[in-house]
Amino acid sequence: MQNKLADLKARLAEVDDLENTASLLEWDQLTMMPPGGAAGRADQVATLQKLAHEKFTADEVGHLLADLGAEYQGAPAEDNEAALVRVATRLFRRKTQIPPALVAEMFQATSTGQSIWPRARAASDFSAFLPQLEKIFDVKRRVAACFPEAASPYDALLDEYEPGANTVQVRAMFDELKRELPPLVQAIAARSDDGRDAILHGDYDEAAQWALTRRAVEQIGYDFNQGRLDPTVHPFETSFGLHDVRITNRVRRDHLTACLMGSLHEAGHALYDLGYPDQYARTPLGHSASLGIHESQSRLWENLVGRSRGYWHYFFPQMQAAFAPQLAAQTADSFYRAVNTVRPTYVRVEADEVTYNLHTVLRFELEVDLLEGRLEPRHAPAAWNAKVKEYLGLTVPEDRLGVLQDTHWASGLIGYFPTYTIGNLASVQFFNKAVADVPSIPADIAHGQFDTLLGWLRQNVHRHARKYLPGDLIQIATGQPLSAKPYLAYLHKKYSELYSL
Amino acid sequence: MQNKLADLKARLAEVDDLENTASLLEWDQLTMMPPGGAAGRADQVATLQKLAHEKFTADEVGHLLADLGAEYQGAPAEDNEAALVRVATRLFRRKTQIPPALVAEMFQATSTGQSIWPRARAASDFSAFLPQLEKIFDVKRRVAACFPEAASPYDALLDEYEPGANTVQVRAMFDELKRELPPLVQAIAARSDDGRDAILHGDYDEAAQWALTRRAVEQIGYDFNQGRLDPTVHPFETSFGLHDVRITNRVRRDHLTACLMGSLHEAGHALYDLGYPDQYARTPLGHSASLGIHESQSRLWENLVGRSRGYWHYFFPQMQAAFAPQLAAQTADSFYRAVNTVRPTYVRVEADEVTYNLHTVLRFELEVDLLEGRLEPRHAPAAWNAKVKEYLGLTVPEDRLGVLQDTHWASGLIGYFPTYTIGNLASVQFFNKAVADVPSIPADIAHGQFDTLLGWLRQNVHRHARKYLPGDLIQIATGQPLSAKPYLAYLHKKYSELYSL
Repeated sequence: MQNKLADLKARLAEVDDLENTASLLEWDQLTMMPPGGAAGRADQVATLQKLAHEKFTADEVGHLLADLGAEYQGAPAEDNEAALVRVATRLFRRKTQIPPALVAEMFQATSTGQSIWPRARAASDFSAFLPQLEKIFDVKRRVAACFPEAASPYDALLDEYEPGANTVQVRAMFDELKRELPPLVQAIAARSDDGRDAILHGDYDEAAQWALTRRAVEQIGYDFNQGRLDPTVHPFETSFGLHDVRITNRVRRDHLTACLMGSLHEAGHALYDLGYPDQYARTPLGHSASLGIHESQSRLWENLVGRSRGYWHYFFPQMQAAFAPQLAAQTADSFYRAVNTVRPTYVRVEADEVTYNLHTVLRFELEVDLLEGRLEPRHAPAAWNAKVKEYLGLTVPEDRLGVLQDTHWASGLIGYFPTYTIGNLASVQFFNKAVADVPSIPADIAHGQFDTLLGWLRQNVHRHARKYLPGDLIQIATGQPLSAKPYLAYLHKKYSELYSL
Repeated sequence: MQNKLADLKARLAEVDDLENTASLLEWDQLTMMPPGGAAGRADQVATLQKLAHEKFTADEVGHLLADLGAEYQGAPAEDNEAALVRVATRLFRRKTQIPPALVAEMFQATSTGQSIWPRARAASDFSAFLPQLEKIFDVKRRVAACFPEAASPYDALLDEYEPGANTVQVRAMFDELKRELPPLVQAIAARSDDGRDAILHGDYDEAAQWALTRRAVEQIGYDFNQGRLDPTVHPFETSFGLHDVRITNRVRRDHLTACLMGSLHEAGHALYDLGYPDQYARTPLGHSASLGIHESQSRLWENLVGRSRGYWHYFFPQMQAAFAPQLAAQTADSFYRAVNTVRPTYVRVEADEVTYNLHTVLRFELEVDLLEGRLEPRHAPAAWNAKVKEYLGLTVPEDRLGVLQDTHWASGLIGYFPTYTIGNLASVQFFNKAVADVPSIPADIAHGQFDTLLGWLRQNVHRHARKYLPGDLIQIATGQPLSAKPYLAYLHKKYSELYSL
């Protein structure tokens, strides 16, 4: 059996090498590649992904997994080898249950979608995108049908991003948020808008912002011996192995904290990817438990740390020094208030902590209705706008700021949005438990000591990598299941004080 | 038969994608990768190279090549499809004639060699490198024996880098150089060393050198829409497809023209790789004819252009402006003299045009003797030093500056050195023919117009890519076979005037 395990590991190591290399091709494309490289690059990415898929879904891998699965039946959940077989089997099934012809059709539909969508968005022309949106939802419906064991089509899609999660649970989570958040948003809106974030909008030197951002991510523990920070159009984090995890961002001269806060977010992702045990290198275990858990780590560093009062008491003097005299009249406290301004927006990626999850609620609800045929794609803009009115109190002026704003549907990422909210909720649960276990953490943050928090995350979240299902990991790390309550309590406490509610 | 050709092309396109991607992994490793990435990167490169090798050497490829080879038997040499089959067959044979176990042994021996050699060189300790050198020559002797059709073991190895070349021809070329060059070196040495290159050694701002270098390579036609120039420890050029060809270099504050001339060299390589027809993309034809032809292009731009009087009449004012007041007392002519200083050195990579080929003569002679058993590796240092004394008149003070200086033997690159000299000789032949066809070229260069020369090279050299054997390509482009005479005539004329011989 050890021979079979070694054979499986050798095969999966090659898959991991191919996937990591495909990620490098994409990172290079977005940060370094000259324009001339585009045509060749698309072929290279396609070839690498095809070979990785072929290698993973080879018949021999299926036989090995079947034999090893029988062997490890009943092994304890924490057994590393059993976990490897379990996780690889789950991935193998996902990859093999969709017929190759349908995979090709999906690839075709989403490639076209990604080329049409940016123009449709720029022109705010939903009708230009509609035929492709119809195709994509049609294909995804057929993809969902490949998983008859799923309780609903949405479950089948969600499972790709958040294994073990289900629509009933996600809907309950969103329903609770939908009840609790709008009153809080309205209560805040009822306070006069005192322009507390005006100072963030000005003309701030790019090089100084960049240097400050580098320092900030290094301070929280991002190690430039195992990473890089490079300029790009859309910020992202990516990894090419356990000790090469890179982040990117962009500087906006007219927004002082956009790059900083976004980079704390990306560095949070990176700290997670840098925290997997070396023994998981080149195996399916050396990855995140799910997109939701990944997002919990980015949001924890961005929000629970980066938007905390303690953080700004530590960090504000550095920022003030970098942007004297512009920030001469500011204080740590005024800055803390500035970066926690709540104001409903049309656009999800610009949303604050309070309104953010209302954006994901509406997307989730529309996706389920579209997938299950209760809503036709051509009626999506009206449905979108009605929900924005209902949840956020805003009237969408054009589809560019509404239904066309996200790349996800054009890319076939249906079932993905709930992971953002799972990440938000779990970030508070992890942080609360860390503070319960290590009460000095808030004071440590205010002194620029981030290693107590990082140490807790390494020990309780990161080191498990993909070993457990995300729901189980939250239970193991915090003693509680995923819940909206800690998140809502956090928001109520923080913003009641910030807005004197 | 068209189906078989399409099948072959699809398979070789994947091989090309894998090889280009492996090149990106290596470029990233040498320019961008954080130190933590090293371990994972070695695995990734190994996996990509292994898969590329497996894909190329698959039985199906062999059958397709056999069938297509019969089909295109007797097709004209310029037929593209016949050329594809011919070149792919040659590569297939080279890759399949060495048994996998011997490939693995060679990989092992050279990996160890590359890890031992830098330390042995740094310590100038030949004995530390000797056991590995013995292993490498032993393995390469057995590799050579896999090609019984070769007339000699050296032929078998040389053919990998310079297809169609043979040892008899190379020896004749070197013998001619060995006769003619030492008297020229001695005649120059007999002139007083007037320190004409003293101005190159000083303290020159790095950013200014870098900016000037970028401008210089752009002026000769290197297109930053299809390339990049990045800092690295050892300069190199690499490509990831026909329109993404990158160069690297390093700036030395204490040497004003090291980065500039080295970058003209690398840009010369890049202009070649950027000149292949689009129809050869993702096929074995979309590559250089040989290392020798590749080197002819880099040396042509570095030496025939970059060390010409005309070039400095054009470029010197820009350099003077970048480094005023340091260059206030210089003229275009004094600078032309400075960059053409002849002085025997221990180290090949620092050699001038006149002495350079004496370094390759001695390496070639030692390699043949080592391979054929007439020289034992333990006697290599003594043999090396005797030849340096004989050809260059220098006494090697330590092995670091002698037999340990190059990475080639440690890397198993035996049979490679002649390609440098083939490149030098061919560079003059190509340039002479270009000027014969387009007499305005020297005057154009002096006016900063490089497109007449580049156009000739595109039309007569680049567009043929790998279609013809290098020897045939030289004949087709210049009407003459490879010869040392034009090169010697060029040196005699240029340096007689520079040194008033």
